Amino acid sequence: MIVVLKENTTKEQKGQLINWLKGQGLQVHESDGEYKTILGLVGDTTKVDKDMLEILEMVDHVTPISEPYKNANRKFHPKDSVIGAGDVKFGGGNFQVIAGPAAVESEEQLLNTARRVKAAGATVLRGSVFGVRKSPYAFQGLKDEGMKYLEEAKRETGLLLMTELQNIDDLKYYDNVDFIQVGARNMQNYDLLKELGHINKPVLLKRGLASTMEELLMSAEYIMAGGNEQVILCERGIRTFEEYTTDTLDISAVPALHLRTHLPVVVDPSNAAGHADMVTPLAMAATAAGADGLMIEVHEEPHKALKDGAQSLDPDEFDRLMDKVRKIREVLD
Amino acid sequence: MIVVLKENTTKEQKGQLINWLKGQGLQVHESDGEYKTILGLVGDTTKVDKDMLEILEMVDHVTPISEPYKNANRKFHPKDSVIGAGDVKFGGGNFQVIAGPAAVESEEQLLNTARRVKAAGATVLRGSVFGVRKSPYAFQGLKDEGMKYLEEAKRETGLLLMTELQNIDDLKYYDNVDFIQVGARNMQNYDLLKELGHINKPVLLKRGLASTMEELLMSAEYIMAGGNEQVILCERGIRTFEEYTTDTLDISAVPALHLRTHLPVVVDPSNAAGHADMVTPLAMAATAAGADGLMIEVHEEPHKALKDGAQSLDPDEFDRLMDKVRKIREVLD
Amino acid sequence: MIVVLKENTTKEQKGQLINWLKGQGLQVHESDGEYKTILGLVGDTTKVDKDMLEILEMVDHVTPISEPYKNANRKFHPKDSVIGAGDVKFGGGNFQVIAGPAAVESEEQLLNTARRVKAAGATVLRGSVFGVRKSPYAFQGLKDEGMKYLEEAKRETGLLLMTELQNIDDLKYYDNVDFIQVGARNMQNYDLLKELGHINKPVLLKRGLASTMEELLMSAEYIMAGGNEQVILCERGIRTFEEYTTDTLDISAVPALHLRTHLPVVVDPSNAAGHADMVTPLAMAATAAGADGLMIEVHEEPHKALKDGAQSLDPDEFDRLMDKVRKIREVLD
Amino acid sequence: MIVVLKENTTKEQKGQLINWLKGQGLQVHESDGEYKTILGLVGDTTKVDKDMLEILEMVDHVTPISEPYKNANRKFHPKDSVIGAGDVKFGGGNFQVIAGPAAVESEEQLLNTARRVKAAGATVLRGSVFGVRKSPYAFQGLKDEGMKYLEEAKRETGLLLMTELQNIDDLKYYDNVDFIQVGARNMQNYDLLKELGHINKPVLLKRGLASTMEELLMSAEYIMAGGNEQVILCERGIRTFEEYTTDTLDISAVPALHLRTHLPVVVDPSNAAGHADMVTPLAMAATAAGADGLMIEVHEEPHKALKDGAQSLDPDEFDRLMDKVRKIREVLD
Repeated sequence: MIVVLKENTTKEQKGQLINWLKGQGLQVHESDGEYKTILGLVGDTTKVDKDMLEILEMVDHVTPISEPYKNANRKFHPKDSVIGAGDVKFGGGNFQVIAGPAAVESEEQLLNTARRVKAAGATVLRGSVFGVRKSPYAFQGLKDEGMKYLEEAKRETGLLLMTELQNIDDLKYYDNVDFIQVGARNMQNYDLLKELGHINKPVLLKRGLASTMEELLMSAEYIMAGGNEQVILCERGIRTFEEYTTDTLDISAVPALHLRTHLPVVVDPSNAAGHADMVTPLAMAATAAGADGLMIEVHEEPHKALKDGAQSLDPDEFDRLMDKVRKIREVLD
Repeated sequence: MIVVLKENTTKEQKGQLINWLKGQGLQVHESDGEYKTILGLVGDTTKVDKDMLEILEMVDHVTPISEPYKNANRKFHPKDSVIGAGDVKFGGGNFQVIAGPAAVESEEQLLNTARRVKAAGATVLRGSVFGVRKSPYAFQGLKDEGMKYLEEAKRETGLLLMTELQNIDDLKYYDNVDFIQVGARNMQNYDLLKELGHINKPVLLKRGLASTMEELLMSAEYIMAGGNEQVILCERGIRTFEEYTTDTLDISAVPALHLRTHLPVVVDPSNAAGHADMVTPLAMAATAAGADGLMIEVHEEPHKALKDGAQSLDPDEFDRLMDKVRKIREVLD
Repeated sequence: MIVVLKENTTKEQKGQLINWLKGQGLQVHESDGEYKTILGLVGDTTKVDKDMLEILEMVDHVTPISEPYKNANRKFHPKDSVIGAGDVKFGGGNFQVIAGPAAVESEEQLLNTARRVKAAGATVLRGSVFGVRKSPYAFQGLKDEGMKYLEEAKRETGLLLMTELQNIDDLKYYDNVDFIQVGARNMQNYDLLKELGHINKPVLLKRGLASTMEELLMSAEYIMAGGNEQVILCERGIRTFEEYTTDTLDISAVPALHLRTHLPVVVDPSNAAGHADMVTPLAMAATAAGADGLMIEVHEEPHKALKDGAQSLDPDEFDRLMDKVRKIREVLD
Repeated sequence: MIVVLKENTTKEQKGQLINWLKGQGLQVHESDGEYKTILGLVGDTTKVDKDMLEILEMVDHVTPISEPYKNANRKFHPKDSVIGAGDVKFGGGNFQVIAGPAAVESEEQLLNTARRVKAAGATVLRGSVFGVRKSPYAFQGLKDEGMKYLEEAKRETGLLLMTELQNIDDLKYYDNVDFIQVGARNMQNYDLLKELGHINKPVLLKRGLASTMEELLMSAEYIMAGGNEQVILCERGIRTFEEYTTDTLDISAVPALHLRTHLPVVVDPSNAAGHADMVTPLAMAATAAGADGLMIEVHEEPHKALKDGAQSLDPDEFDRLMDKVRKIREVLD
């Protein structure tokens, strides 16, 4: 950590600060410039609060040298983490496709879709049951009834389940859910993240619409700091000025996160694209960039979907997507 | 609502859609162009799901003509809403200053600050007790103990209380809180908003870091649709590329929201500025733009604050700010 | 084009507007709602100025139905354009790799790099000679001397040349340049674009850092409206809040532009990534998404580059990238 | 300047770097941490190229301690610069209002508007004659004919002239123009900025739509480095996700720039607001925040304007705006 002092700092002030820092068990190296003084702090700086230092009158600014996240940091855990349930593993060379409808609408709809995505090679079934809509007047999800349909689809197809949790009070319904999804709007719902740190189940954490990758890693840290190290990161598009897509898929998140963390990185192209006709090229791009998995919205009859139909593939389109993705995976190996 | 059809739509498809729309009680006016057909829908379109129409194969796009929010819409409620508790009213010409520390740290800190902001003219005391920090390793708030200090400060000074609620389970501690704050990161925590629709207490709703004003109004709608119409909107800065400020205070939110909604609009310049030396000019600007109130972070000794010290004013600076704000208010009348 | 009138519009005002619109040769279809009136305009609306209509007191807003670009519009030119020089063609199934140093620094540097990228399969040599730097104190380019080195490299290797033009007065030096590049900062330098509309040479037009794809297409339109239809679009990353990359490569630009325009789309991953270790995965992603070409910065000794060394590959890294890109291209066919 | 070395740097590499840095006349202070080494550079680091250091294999990253701009830096020039022509001065307590139509359309339109804004208290007349429009099919400006109308208006009213220059070749028409405006889209047109560094006339430099304040200061530096220190900065709104305004007026630019530079800061609320009904509150806010001047679009008959009519005030509205701005200015003194 580097602390830069303002030019009018007195010797006395400087001495007090240095003594205090040494009292925290740190070594302090001083460089005096014409205008400013630079203090280089060496040792375990994780407990030094950057914000607290920065508001000292004599301090111009503070620059951390180490990353603020630890459990998620590849530096301390160089090998890829392999995270999953049963035989379905993400990371370390393992690649999975999560597929299913945006929202669970009926038993029949879900079962038909589940059979088709299973046949095409998906291993995890998705589907929201506790709804999130921007308007209070829109469809709000089937809740625990939808959960029963998911469980039925799991029994019949053998697909594992992933569904979103918004409210920790609903956790009681999630016994048969294999992967808990935290949605983009909840990425910084710290109360929820803390609770998920105390369970023993993999969590797929979606990046917020205007969040940086470092903020995503800090949210992963919230879960991991509680003891649950089974976190899968998910890039699903960020908000930009562009209007031809709902959000902008940040494909760089795949290599950029892989450089910094050992956690698997999954890409959801459906939400970002917002239109079915862009989902396949984006899925291919994500695969080629080295993603550890994909999440694809598939609906039996997209034009009848109660949520996000415009961005859902129909089962035939999903078949063709899976063929192309498989070919790209073969090239990578 | 306007529905634009693709150029290759058959007469039969068009006929079916028009019949279905008429079945919803709407009048449909058709304009046939060389490439596209335009349908103008007249009547109560609030129940027509724009997303559902848009995914029909024949539909190019749908443009709503009416705003998607109703309870918050000035069109249906032309007079300013006046919202408050006791004698402390926001809106319709009423202007209030909310002040206090970012976080409640100790009884003494809070009381000293409360006495000073009361003397300077503030009417509401702020202070977070259930903490929100980006790092799991940082100070997390005093919780119910902090709430007791807030109540003590209210008893002693007569200031009303405003504090943030993140988790609906904590509501039991909020009996003596006069205004509930919903923070920027929770602006789209719909479960929380729905619950706040069922209580009888004013809610100050902060705009999300990357949210549009329309999204803010839709979140207000979530609360109002539940029956609680006491919503105060708060502009606190949005995320942009700028690095000299923490966030960019969107001063246009004051006139732009006033044109569209009857709800009061309060401005919080402290969070946006991120540095105390910009808070006063921004507070003056917000007042001149016609804000219905200000929220200002004040700390007895900013350089010792456990949270957001860099952006807090000390009580002397706050006195001077209040003088200037008062003069601007006089000019406006 | 749809014109929505305000609710308080008088019959007389409406009649005058409709007459005026009909005088422009348009058919006008009227739909009267409870609050607003909708006018659907049918005919050649390209000459109707949206801005002018929108400021009429009675007009609430105007929604164009047709795209504002014509020459670049796939609707009027469904087949892919194939654009190039000599045998080097972009688009319609043709894929090319443009490679070379960010800036031309010396004859030897350029020749060594040119030989290596040619051997690896690149067909166009890039290299800036008229420099663009944010600081007036940084290296400003070799100018016409650098142009001679480019010509020498072309003679020796047979690679075609692409280099940036910032100032139309420099065009006299560009006789032997095969492709003129317009940089991101000049995407809306309309004086430059107009001049490039009068020459007979392909132009690679880079998307601005905060520009939408529609703005990119409108800038292409400026060139094409002048008579030069040889425009290649280039996605090179947009500015977002993300800090792990210099800019965010908008991979969706490949399918989104292909849907709307017949012009080829090239991707430059070097500028967006900002770090060499992300360039290869991004190049693979762009290829898999269907790009018509890549632009890659290659430097003999990246750590000695006078510009953008951090994001340049060395020739060995470029060899490996080309191998991987070739394999992805094979899968696509 | 701080240079952080990677953990695997050998002693030899480190030694070579330190020697090279010392050869540049710098003192180098070394702090060795467990993972990384920090070098603090003391002396004149303005000639050390940050980018060049950063691409050295051993370097993790480089953090500048000093600002990259010098001539514009308040640190080296603590007193406010007062910049103007004749008696019309901006900065150091001087406040001016620039007003006029977005584009010059006819002699009569310009003269009528000029008389009215002069009477209301404006001192500088604005009006574009060399047009900038996003579409090649829109009105492109009256060019040198428009310039004659501006000169005529100056002769008759005594108002000074400010108009935009896009192309350095047009400078020959600007003899009677008192202030040259550089538009937002040209803020990083470095060729243009360099040329403006060699003239002796004040330049009003508008901030780019997606530019940071530091980038604005670096563009000012381009002009000042050439010898022309008469630069006035102008905040005119930045691009954000917000849709109720054309751009988001960054009101914080006023205090944030005043803290860092001695140059005057003018605010243009018309472009940002995009609608006349928000211009007055934003102008009042800018004045209250301490702006050194305002630029306001005024049009005799806004609904007939050929450019930007929606955001133009009519002369009566401008009279009322001037009254309110004057009252705020009185409070500030």
